Amino acid sequence: MMRIAVVAPSCRLTEEAAEAVRAIVAERGDCELAIHPQCFLSDGHFAGPDEARLAALREVMADPAIDAVWYARGGYGSNRIAEAAVVDLPEAARGKVYLGYSDAGFLHAAFHNAGLQVAWGPMPQDALRGDHGLLDGVAAVQRALDWLVRRDPAALEPALDGPAMAFNLTVLSNLLGTSLEPDFSGVDLLIEEVSEHLYATDRTMFHVTASPAIRTVRQIRLGRVSDILPNDPDFGVDEVTIVEQWCTRSGIAFGGRADIGHDAGNRVVPFPPENR
Amino acid sequence: MMRIAVVAPSCRLTEEAAEAVRAIVAERGDCELAIHPQCFLSDGHFAGPDEARLAALREVMADPAIDAVWYARGGYGSNRIAEAAVVDLPEAARGKVYLGYSDAGFLHAAFHNAGLQVAWGPMPQDALRGDHGLLDGVAAVQRALDWLVRRDPAALEPALDGPAMAFNLTVLSNLLGTSLEPDFSGVDLLIEEVSEHLYATDRTMFHVTASPAIRTVRQIRLGRVSDILPNDPDFGVDEVTIVEQWCTRSGIAFGGRADIGHDAGNRVVPFPPENR
Repeated sequence: MMRIAVVAPSCRLTEEAAEAVRAIVAERGDCELAIHPQCFLSDGHFAGPDEARLAALREVMADPAIDAVWYARGGYGSNRIAEAAVVDLPEAARGKVYLGYSDAGFLHAAFHNAGLQVAWGPMPQDALRGDHGLLDGVAAVQRALDWLVRRDPAALEPALDGPAMAFNLTVLSNLLGTSLEPDFSGVDLLIEEVSEHLYATDRTMFHVTASPAIRTVRQIRLGRVSDILPNDPDFGVDEVTIVEQWCTRSGIAFGGRADIGHDAGNRVVPFPPENR
Repeated sequence: MMRIAVVAPSCRLTEEAAEAVRAIVAERGDCELAIHPQCFLSDGHFAGPDEARLAALREVMADPAIDAVWYARGGYGSNRIAEAAVVDLPEAARGKVYLGYSDAGFLHAAFHNAGLQVAWGPMPQDALRGDHGLLDGVAAVQRALDWLVRRDPAALEPALDGPAMAFNLTVLSNLLGTSLEPDFSGVDLLIEEVSEHLYATDRTMFHVTASPAIRTVRQIRLGRVSDILPNDPDFGVDEVTIVEQWCTRSGIAFGGRADIGHDAGNRVVPFPPENR
């Protein structure tokens, strides 16, 4: 039976979400869940100090009994431990898959560079999402588990047709030029954004599309841009036009929309080599 | 008599601020002000479409009768025209100085790279600031004019003792890796921030201090971080600790505080070669 460890490299998991996910897993009966106590630590913004978050992550990475590492939630903070997490990788770290999204993009980049198998997808804290009905968050968690346990193709972003990566746009912008920056050549780059002003999204698209590394992608596809903060005056164009314009200006192909986002509909995007 | 042109490469100037600055200039009697009509254009977020903002900027750059170009205000948008602004520079563009801050950092970087003389400092829209009393905004504008007209050393950031540059932290982060990125080697890098969450400032400091280009600075000094958006839970450490920690982690010297910020106390920081 697949054994899944949950750790929180960014912000803390709520007890309520943990309970909901435990119940889902118990009902499924096709996997075991080990929620690391570190998930409930608190240190200011973070789920415990850097040292505790790193130690928990390294512990489950090194555990040969763990088949998958599932990040509890996003927020912010995984960049603070991403570089240290891949130093002197234990052999057991290679046999498993790492799932999450949003702030976990920093870890995805570092882990992908280190040859580990990572995937963008829903996280335990999503169990509490109820964007379009109470069951939505549960569906997101089920989708993640369907993919973890049996690589269910129905969990995947539906238009994947080659190597792909998915990132939150702001996270992507903040890892460019750092030691975490992955090789984007030839990949479909799926981006999404949440809780930003459209002017900031325009600025971040300027930054991202100006990067020579980003200009090696096959195409950019845009997921959902949600909870957009008000712009005064109105920004003037919408998020699709923003992304399309910067793609045009930078000579990057725009491949249309993608079925990812900070919501319960968020799909799984395995990074290469998983799907290469 | 020094002739100063005002253009708005980002957001539009308000009539009220324009009136206030006209009155200050009339009373001073030591300079002439030409507020370009483009300053009052409006196109969504911007002071007119990219083409109009670029045309006005190029027009005053090319005008040999103009001694100084003063950016009306910040906001967002100068990055959209910065690269085009320095193409085939007219000779008259070289004999003048360019003053502004915040979003103008994109232009400062491009213009500095092109060998033009740029400086961080208060802008016309600051006339309406009243952070600590009604006269504050007027003092900021007077400070900018004192420096433009007679290079008054009292207008300068008080601890400058060598080549220096000043940037809004988010603007700096968004120009790294783009064609606008300047050579930071050996400079005192003064940064400031406004209207961001502390977690975002921590993330941006991660990005900025991870940049090999930034690691060539002499030191980083921190201006004011104002209008900090709430962090839930409390971030845990303050902005000085954040900047100090990332400097330590990246081997960059931290030089303490700087007297710049999004406020009426903001001082002038001429970029090299002006002060090299």
